[in-house]
Amino acid sequence: MPDSYDSYVLFDDQRGRYLVLDIGWNDDNYLHTTPIHIDLISDKIWIQYDDTEEGVATDLLEAGVPKEDIVLGFRHPKIRQHTGFAVA
Amino acid sequence: MPDSYDSYVLFDDQRGRYLVLDIGWNDDNYLHTTPIHIDLISDKIWIQYDDTEEGVATDLLEAGVPKEDIVLGFRHPKIRQHTGFAVA
Repeated sequence: MPDSYDSYVLFDDQRGRYLVLDIGWNDDNYLHTTPIHIDLISDKIWIQYDDTEEGVATDLLEAGVPKEDIVLGFRHPKIRQHTGFAVA
Repeated sequence: MPDSYDSYVLFDDQRGRYLVLDIGWNDDNYLHTTPIHIDLISDKIWIQYDDTEEGVATDLLEAGVPKEDIVLGFRHPKIRQHTGFAVA
């Protein structure tokens, strides 16, 4: 693996916002990405960004979270109704 | 402006990590970016990411923060010594 980076979490409990950040260097190129971003909004879990292999939604379902409590924020609102997950 | 997005803050005081996130839609394309990311590490202010026009470092200097207390984390460590800001 050519990249040299570390992963960090940011938890903002007051606002219900949760992030994983990857920061580091690939040779001279700066790496600063957000592989996971989850928000708690009105009793729903919004997956705002998900660059993981398995998928955060899959992890949540396996953990017993009902599909209707999960919103795929990274899907466009007009196609969200076809995902089987909550629209908002 | 074609983009339709909102800006959000994430404050993790426990870990000393602070973010501004822009999230929205540009037509069908999802927008999820981190224009500002600042960390407090060992009494220094690390600017981990800065996509602002003016520059966060400029704002900090104007607010009276000494240059030696600011680290430009997005600059490669080997050139940081030539920036006039702290190396780490």
